[in-house]
Parts: sequence; C-alpha cells; structure tokens
Amino acid sequence: MLGRRVARHAGLRRGQLLAPPPRPKLSTTTTPRATTTLTTQRQLYFLTSKPTRPTTPPPQFFSPSNIRSLSTTKPPRRLKLVIQRSLAWLGSSVLFVSLGVIGFFIYDATTYVDHISASGDLRIPHLALNPRRGGPKNLPILEEYLDDEDDEVRKQQKDKPRLVILGGGWGSVALLKDLNPDHYHVTVISPTNYFLFTPMLPSATVGTLGLRSLVEPIRRVIAGVRGRFVRAKAEDVDFSARLVEVSQVDCHGVDQRFYVPYDKLVIGVGSVTNPHGVKGLEHCHFLKDIDDARQIRNKVIQNLELACLPTTTDEDRKRLLSFVVSGGGPTGVEFAAELYDLLNEDLIQMFPRLLRNEISVHLIQSRGHILNTYDETLSKYAEDRFARDQVDVLTNSRVSEVKEDSIVFTQKAPDGTVITKELPMGFCLWSTGVSQADFCKTISKKLGAAQTNRHALETDTHLRLNGTPLGDVYAIGDCATVQNNVADHIVSFLRHLAWKHGTDPEKLSLHFSDWRNVAEQVKKKFPQAANHLKRLDKLFEQYDADQSGTLDFEELTELLKQIDSKLTSLPATAQRAHQQGQYLAHKFNKLARAASGLRANDIIEGDVDAAVYKAFEYKHLGSLAYIGNSAVFDFGEGRGFGGGLWAVYAWRSIYFAQSVSFRTRVLMAMDWGKRALFGRDLMSY
Amino acid sequence: MLGRRVARHAGLRRGQLLAPPPRPKLSTTTTPRATTTLTTQRQLYFLTSKPTRPTTPPPQFFSPSNIRSLSTTKPPRRLKLVIQRSLAWLGSSVLFVSLGVIGFFIYDATTYVDHISASGDLRIPHLALNPRRGGPKNLPILEEYLDDEDDEVRKQQKDKPRLVILGGGWGSVALLKDLNPDHYHVTVISPTNYFLFTPMLPSATVGTLGLRSLVEPIRRVIAGVRGRFVRAKAEDVDFSARLVEVSQVDCHGVDQRFYVPYDKLVIGVGSVTNPHGVKGLEHCHFLKDIDDARQIRNKVIQNLELACLPTTTDEDRKRLLSFVVSGGGPTGVEFAAELYDLLNEDLIQMFPRLLRNEISVHLIQSRGHILNTYDETLSKYAEDRFARDQVDVLTNSRVSEVKEDSIVFTQKAPDGTVITKELPMGFCLWSTGVSQADFCKTISKKLGAAQTNRHALETDTHLRLNGTPLGDVYAIGDCATVQNNVADHIVSFLRHLAWKHGTDPEKLSLHFSDWRNVAEQVKKKFPQAANHLKRLDKLFEQYDADQSGTLDFEELTELLKQIDSKLTSLPATAQRAHQQGQYLAHKFNKLARAASGLRANDIIEGDVDAAVYKAFEYKHLGSLAYIGNSAVFDFGEGRGFGGGLWAVYAWRSIYFAQSVSFRTRVLMAMDWGKRALFGRDLMSY
Repeated sequence: MLGRRVARHAGLRRGQLLAPPPRPKLSTTTTPRATTTLTTQRQLYFLTSKPTRPTTPPPQFFSPSNIRSLSTTKPPRRLKLVIQRSLAWLGSSVLFVSLGVIGFFIYDATTYVDHISASGDLRIPHLALNPRRGGPKNLPILEEYLDDEDDEVRKQQKDKPRLVILGGGWGSVALLKDLNPDHYHVTVISPTNYFLFTPMLPSATVGTLGLRSLVEPIRRVIAGVRGRFVRAKAEDVDFSARLVEVSQVDCHGVDQRFYVPYDKLVIGVGSVTNPHGVKGLEHCHFLKDIDDARQIRNKVIQNLELACLPTTTDEDRKRLLSFVVSGGGPTGVEFAAELYDLLNEDLIQMFPRLLRNEISVHLIQSRGHILNTYDETLSKYAEDRFARDQVDVLTNSRVSEVKEDSIVFTQKAPDGTVITKELPMGFCLWSTGVSQADFCKTISKKLGAAQTNRHALETDTHLRLNGTPLGDVYAIGDCATVQNNVADHIVSFLRHLAWKHGTDPEKLSLHFSDWRNVAEQVKKKFPQAANHLKRLDKLFEQYDADQSGTLDFEELTELLKQIDSKLTSLPATAQRAHQQGQYLAHKFNKLARAASGLRANDIIEGDVDAAVYKAFEYKHLGSLAYIGNSAVFDFGEGRGFGGGLWAVYAWRSIYFAQSVSFRTRVLMAMDWGKRALFGRDLMSY
Repeated sequence: MLGRRVARHAGLRRGQLLAPPPRPKLSTTTTPRATTTLTTQRQLYFLTSKPTRPTTPPPQFFSPSNIRSLSTTKPPRRLKLVIQRSLAWLGSSVLFVSLGVIGFFIYDATTYVDHISASGDLRIPHLALNPRRGGPKNLPILEEYLDDEDDEVRKQQKDKPRLVILGGGWGSVALLKDLNPDHYHVTVISPTNYFLFTPMLPSATVGTLGLRSLVEPIRRVIAGVRGRFVRAKAEDVDFSARLVEVSQVDCHGVDQRFYVPYDKLVIGVGSVTNPHGVKGLEHCHFLKDIDDARQIRNKVIQNLELACLPTTTDEDRKRLLSFVVSGGGPTGVEFAAELYDLLNEDLIQMFPRLLRNEISVHLIQSRGHILNTYDETLSKYAEDRFARDQVDVLTNSRVSEVKEDSIVFTQKAPDGTVITKELPMGFCLWSTGVSQADFCKTISKKLGAAQTNRHALETDTHLRLNGTPLGDVYAIGDCATVQNNVADHIVSFLRHLAWKHGTDPEKLSLHFSDWRNVAEQVKKKFPQAANHLKRLDKLFEQYDADQSGTLDFEELTELLKQIDSKLTSLPATAQRAHQQGQYLAHKFNKLARAASGLRANDIIEGDVDAAVYKAFEYKHLGSLAYIGNSAVFDFGEGRGFGGGLWAVYAWRSIYFAQSVSFRTRVLMAMDWGKRALFGRDLMSY
C-alpha cells in the first residue's frame, strides 16, 4: 500500500513524455569534408578556366575570395553575372516574403465580420428555458440546452447517448480530440473554461512563456465534437438515477445547484495540492493553475523591487531574496531552474549587482535525490548542474512548518541523526505532490466498500469506476487509479476451468497447459502484469512447491499475489491521463459502432466493454525535465541522457509537438523568439 | 472657467495623434493596365518565337495558359526551363527563409547565460546601506543608491545634478527617451514598474491584444539614461529642502516613508478616474491600468458563461448580457467597439446563438454627441456606424446612480424635458474623464495662492510649477495644466516700454510699433496665443475705442483679456504629455550644456529657462478613434475623415509607429496576426 502511494506522489503530474522524443538534429556549420570539396573544386576551376571556357560553368561559390580569383581572367562579365544572380536570388526571396505578408493582410481583411447574421428563426427548446425539476433533491435538470436547435448537427444529437465529462484537463481533452463526433451528445462540465498545458507552467512563472500560450479555450476543443460546455463544479453523482449534481455561484452570489443527466459519465476532475499536514501553507505559493503562475511572477518581482528600497534592512534584503522550493519533483526542479534563468539572464541587467550577489535559491527534497523517479544518473546530473549554478539542494529534508518569513525543516544526516533547521525566506513554492479533490472524496464515500483507496478513485482495467453499474461511469487522470488486484480475481479465472473439469475451483490442480490459459486470461484482464508473466515455465516450476507437476489453489494464489506485489500503480502524470483519454475515445467509438449488433444479440447486460475493446494498458514513453540551460530525458529501464543547450531545444521540440493546438504551438514559438530578442518581462501586473 | 474644465475632461487622455498619420497604401491585385501589358507581351512573343529564337528570352509569366501556348512551338525544352526557373526561385526563397530561421537559432543559442559573472569586487556605498536621516520629518534620505558603484558610468554620475521624475507615463517616458544620458543623475519614482501604452487599452479588454504587448518595463526605458528606479509612491514634496517624501509598504506590511533629494523635480503622476459624485461606482469597472483590462475581460466572459446556465432566468440572462459604457469619449467608444467585435466575431462561434440575440451594448453620453471633441461630421459617422451595429447610443444622458444590477440616468429630450430611466445591466464601464490625484491635491494646498485650479497643477509656459523656486520643479501630463493668463502679465510686458519712455506703465499710450513689440513678447511667452495675434493692425483698430491712434492701459488690458478668454487649456491627452516630456528633455539638455557659461555670467538666479530655451508650444497633430471595423481621424480645423477596414489598418499603423519600443511593436504585430489566425481568447484567468 505504502509502495503504491509513494509511486503516485513521486510521479507528479508533469515532466512526462506523451510521444517518443525526436532525435535532436543540430548540424554544425561546415564539416572538414565539405571544406575539402570546396578547395578541390576551386583548384580545378583555376586549371580549366584559362585555356578553354567551359560551355556550362561549374558550380560557383559566392565568396569574396572566389570573386577575386575570377577577376584575373574575365573580370567584368563574370562579376556582373555573379552580382546579377545574387540580386535575382535576393530579389526573389524578398518577393517571396512580401507576397506572404500581402497574402496575410488579404486573409486578415476577410476575418472581420461586418454584419450580424440575422437569426430571426431562432428556436430555443422549451425545457432549456424552463427546466423540469426532479431527482432525489428536486433540482432543475439540464435535459435540453440553449443551442440544441442551433444547427442541423445539433438537432440530430438529440437522441444520441449522453456522454458527460467532468473536468477539462489532459484526460478529457485527449478523449474529446479522438472521439467520433457522430455518436454522442457530449457535455463537458468544468469550473475553468480552458485547458492548461501543465508541463510548461514553470516557464510561465518567470515570463519565459506568456500565460496565453499555455491555455486553450475548452469551448474550442469541444467544438470538434459539437459538444456543450457548462461552467460549473461537480458536487455529487446519483449513480442509480444517472444524474450529476453540479453547483455554480449565480450572478446574485447565490450557490445554485442543478442536475445534468448522463448515459455515460467520465470523471476527470484531477487532484488538489497535497498539504502533507504541514502548518502555515497559507504563506506558500502553489503551481496548479495559470493564475498561480501570474501570482508567483508578481511576488518574485515585488521581492526584487522591495530589496532595492533604502528602508529595507540588510537582513530583510537577504530574506526577500531567499527563494525556497519545497519538493524535488519535476515541477519544483523546473521552477528552480526557470527562476535561476530569470535571475541570471535578465535580472542582472536591470537591478543593482548587489541583488544578484545576495540571491539564494533553495530546493528542499524529502528523498535522497531530486527527480527521484528518474534514473539515478540523471538525478545526479541534475544535482551537479544545480550545484554549479549555486542552487542549494537540501535532500533528506522534510518541511515541518512554514512561517511568514521562514521555513522550518528537519534534515537527516547520513549517520541517521536528525537536525531541525530554520531558513529565512521571502518566497516559498509548495509542490510536493497531489491529493484527492473533495468531489472524489464524496463519491468514494458513497461507493463504500467498492472504494478502498484513500488517495484516488479505483477503477478496473477497463477504467470503469468500481462499485458503479458496469459501463456507466469511468474515471481517468490524476483523480483515478487502475486496480491491478490480480490475486482477487483468481476464482473468476478458475471458474471456467473448474466448469470444464466438473469440480470445485478450490480443489483444482492445474497442469502447465491450464496455467498457460490462466496466464493468458490474466494478461488480457491486467495488461500491466504481462511483463511479469513472460517465463511461464519458470514461474510454474518456482511455485510448484511440492514438485507435483501441478499447481494447486494455494500455490496459484501465492504466485498471483507475488505478481500483484510487483505491480506499482500508474504514475499520476499528464502522460497517463492522455493515454487514458485516448483509450476511452477509441472504446466509445467502438461501442457506438457495435451498439446495434450488441442490441440484436442481447448482450447489453453483460461485460460489453470487455467484449468490444481490450483493457487499458499504460505505455511509459519517458520522462523529461528542464534543469536550467540543460535538460534530462529518462526513457525508463536505465535508458536516458542529460545535456546542455541542444537538450533544451529537444525538450522544447517534444512539448511543442505535444501542445494541444496549432494556436498554442505558434504562441509558444513566438514566446521563445521573444525571450531571445527581448528577454523576460520583469513587470508585475 | 467652465469652458476650460469642459475641454479638459472631454479631451480625455487617449485617442490622439503624436505624429501625422502615414497615407495608407493598399495596392490592389492587378490593375487593368497590367493585364494589357501581359497580353501584348504574350502576343509579341508568339510573333517572334517561330521564325527566330531570341538570344535572351523575354520575360516569362508562369501561368498555366502560358505553358499551354508555349507547348505548341518548342514544348519540352521551354517547359523544362520554366519549371527549372520556378523551382530555382522557390528554392532560393525557401533557402532564404531557412537561413533566417537557422540564423535565429544560432542567435538564440548565444542568449543563454551559463555562468554567473563573478563580482568579487562589488562595492556598495555606505550611505546606500545605512541611509542618513534628516529633513523636516527626520526620515531616511536616499542620497546614494545600491548600484552607484556598479560601473564607470554610474560612478561618474555622482556629482551630476539630480533629476527626479515622479511617474512613468507618457510624459516621463518621452523625457527619458530624449534626455542626454551624460548630464544628469536620473531617478524615476513610480508605484508601477511598467509604462502602459494607454491608447490601446480597450483592445486588451477583449483579447485583441495581449496584456504584455501594451507594457514596457520602466527599468528598460530608464536604462537608456543609466538611471535608477524606485518603486514607491510620492506623497509630498518639501520645496525648500528639495526633498520628495515617498512611501512604500515593506515586506512586513508596514508603511515606510523616506526622502529622495532632487535638484530638478518633474511631476508626471497622471490623474485618477473622475467619479463626478455619482453613487455606487463600486459596481463599475474602470480602464486606467493593465489589471483593469484583465478584470474586464474576466467579467465579460464570466457573464457569458453564467448566461448559459439552466438556473439563470430569462430576466437575469438579458441583464447579464446588457453591457453599459458610461462616457462617450474615445475610451468609451473604443471599448464599445471592441466589445462589439468580440461578440460579433468570436462569441457567435462558441456560444449558443440565443446569447448573440439577447446581447445589448449601451453607450451613455452626457453631451449631444459621442466623441464630442471631434469634428461633428466624424461624431455623426461614428454614431451612424454604431446605429448600424446595434450599439445603443444614449446622448444627453447623465448617470445619477449605479446600482448592483442596474444603472439610473436622466435623459434630456430635445424639447428640454428631463426623464429618469433605469437600465438593467450586467457590466458597466465608467470612463467619464479624469480628476486630480491625492498627491497633487497635497502639493496644490501647500502652494496656496499660487495654485488656483481645482483640477490640475498650474505651470507657467515653461512648465515650471507655479509657486515653487524658479527652475526647480516642473509638472507635465494629465496632472498639470499650462496657464495662459496673458492679461495678468500686462504690467511686466509694459515695464520695459515704460522704462524706455520714463513713465509709469499705467499711464503709457502705445503706438502701433509699441503694440507690435508687446505682441511679440506675448507670443514668445505664450506661444498658444500666437494664433489670435495674427492681424495686429486689425486688433489695434478694433480695440482703439477712442480712435486716438494709440492704445491706453485700459484698452490694452481689454484686448489681452479677450485673447485670454479665447485660449482653452490644453487637452489631457497622451499627445500633450508626450510633447511636454520631449520639451523638457530638450530644455534640460540645453540647460546642462549652458550651465558653465551661465555660471560664469552670474545669471543663475534669473529666469534661466527663458534665457536658454523657448516656451512650450503644443502642436495638435490630430485625434483618432477605432469604432468597430472602421476608424475616424480628426486633424483639427474641420479636416478629418472616417472609413472602413483601410482606416483600421491606418489606425493601427499610427499606433504601431508611436509604440514605445521595438519590443512592443513586434508583440503588437504578433497579436494582430494571432487575432486573424485564431480569434480572440475567450478565457478568464
């Protein structure tokens, strides 16, 4: 249990790959080989140019030395030709660019809408304006929407199954992007009306990226499936009546509640920051939302400005310039790196040099290494880098209290002694993992015995929420965990074998071929277990304790329990949420296509999901982290690397490729260009 | 008095030109003439191509029809040539662009600073760390700064005159940009650490422009004169001790005060919103700051989202979608226009059509026309445009109270009857002119009789604050007004004449030549009066009441009083502030150069400013305003025009040219591009 919990928190929700990284290509300017060719050709040319003029001129290199050599033979005409060609090239290039600019202006001119489209025949469904009341709490039920009659596509959605998605994060957006728009009536419910590209959030705290570049309006994503958006907060679910209870503060400041009915519900509400029971977190900043990034930027700059004032004492100045990051996962590490970049690249040009000298960045990590989910060599690389950059890494340290102007933590020395230290600080970022949102706690409590995990909603490997009617409710992303309780399913694995042998499952003896069948079933139901079921013969031998040539019930249980213990829960990362969203999209598409056939064959009541689509299998593609003008990449199983500027470009390329839309890609690229040209914005607003 | 006040408020601080607008050039694609040439050339080519092959091929046009014609004569080779050339052109263009991209990456790679520059020999002045106390309130005095020893340039500034600038708006930035960095030790004091490009602020409220594109870090501007920045608020000035009292809340939340000593002080603290004594302004939004723009954007989107919820009643929905703008000056008009654009171009794609139908935009204006400082035809043009766009313009209307969900105003009908109306509203922008900041009120009170204007600090035409030691304190921008009290100076005008004639000024009779001398002096001292002193002979005749051929004291006083009454005070616009800042920069540069000579000639005590540089003369370059896919331009004296999209491009070009830095220009251009490609951002954060 503890092992699972640790894996969940250490993984965090960031710094993970969604696609294999492209091999970074950075060609150097001129290779020695190219130089040789150049010389050879030039020499050849000298040999031939004097006696006979070649009918077709050899390839020319427009370099000053070349022109000078040419000028000894037939100077005016050749020179003129070279100049003419150069001008033609330049001209055509300028023309090319100009045409682009003019084209853009012409396009731009078409984007201004001048007239309001007259919509006289606007029809609004009666129930959208006057919703019926009902459900256990007799609240208004959102059965019809204001835009249900707005166009033909929407009109046809009326009788489609209602797919309600709670949350607008990685999982939900991946689901929306891959869902076939023809099959469902989609509603997304979320208190924020944008999708946030979380892995780049640390970059936004110091102005490397603009806030706009990291967010995409959720309505724009939903438009792809012609769905609806409700800006509200999910509070509860009535699983029998298939109603989600949502709340929103109305224009009079009153909390309004209503129901949204569903046929299929996807819960992807994410997680909240884990306070770890530490006192004084009100003095900390968090980094979950775009507004957090804005507040951090303002606070950092405010501290720098205060440090310049004559009324600030030496002691206060040092304290104001002491930046503490609690948590050595990717978020904490990347924030420390970005902060260091800001102070080193931009601050020094604008503020007194004294400030740069008195600034200190501290990173408090409870484990022995920062980035502890990464390969140890990479953790070491990051630590060396930080040591060189004078970022103070405090490992084996646990924060016990945050005060208004200092942070108290206990540090464990290598000899096991524990010392309590107090560090004056002017800013503290708290990024020590995630915990369960209130909504999930409510749901979990309601489902009782079916939900045993204190940290996340448990689903089966088909991502169906345990304890709810099969095929009704799914949970994905940070708020959910996939149960890999292989051993618990032993009876069901053996049932069909027992039926074949005509005996009680518990009295069965399995031969190797039976064992192979069971293993196949386990692999199908729990894809993550496949890695541990590779050498079936060895396992059989190993667990056949009495050397009987067969496995009895106890031996098999022991075998599966051992496999169980080897399975860690999946990391709470963007990568996992994304894969789960995609998985559900593909399954829902298949379910919709299979619906009529299933209905004809009367298997609506059975395990339809399993009949139609495979179980969810997580494929870890790697993790990456920015560590200050360098980056580390971990592809798992000891493979990975860390490097300098080229790795930074690679790191950017990967996130660029994963970015949610063309819009955010263009904005990101522009932001990186801005940084190069103008530096970061040292302004608070 | 009333006339002046009206001119001040109506002018507002925006929508004015700082430079004459460039003539918009929008070339159309192909003119008929170009087509003719094309045909002629092609025909010519047919005539010559068959019998003799030209040694140099005529210009070719790569069009499908052209290829087809060519293929009848010598198809393969010509076609190949055309394709080859086209490919060469395309190739070179791609190469050109690629080289640019590669070049940018190489440049980018050089912008990452990897090592902290070791600054072991950092010297900090003793007084910077331990400021001396003094002045009337015994506060710390900021005599030396933390960075005074940071480099050679700063070290040399130690004995330069101390120029302290309060505020970082248009006036201050214009001054900083034109000031010679060698002559002064410059300090800027402002509570905000950025310069805001105010005229474009309405565009930022709806996401047409990003917030970052409108601001420039003030430290970057100050770096041009190697000056210092103190982020604090000016509270008071001790004019005899030459100390500015400033305040700042320190890191413990305590209000700290200290003095900043000056040799020359420039007051450019701007103005605050004018409440006009209306109740309930806490329910309104304002548009003075970048954070205001952010809040407005969030509120607009929040209202749209609330309007979609099923728990929102019909009545509430209509109210939420009723947007009211109070104030028909450029700010109000442009905000209404930008809001209309948002609703018309972007909203309709993302929200139910019902919303678009129920949205209403109201513009409440106390005068008979919107944009009432503009030429009447332009006001009319704007009103027609708004009428077409269904923006409800309510003229002759005065807001009496703003309630939480409605606005109460009185409207004067053409027959003079006054009706009180109440309009339900979900959002109200208050943009009805400016009023004096607290700091200016404090100063004004202190200076007593020398300051008689309730609305702004009075300066003479050399921009020196009335009532302060000559040449010590200047006031520019919105917080100041230039006194044009021509008649009050009549005695001083006549003194030298009287001295020449050996008589009392009041008993003098002026011949025409004397009058001409007086007029010259008036023009020099009050450049704004020059317009009214063009026909000196006519004025002489007109005011020589007793037809004596001379003007006596009473007659001259009457004449100058009449001119006085014709002079309106200058508009409180960015344009005026900018010109005043430039004026002071040029004067300060001249003063510094002349300093040694003046000292030698012992004229330090006299009117040095007048001896060195001319009086300030405001040149009105024109006003402009965006009115929703069209714009109006007013160049004064009845000249001006309004137009559609091409005028919008012209409007943008002007602001693009006036923008404070290359950085903001690039950012603005990018934002306009983004709008065209991706629309506005319908997100609140």
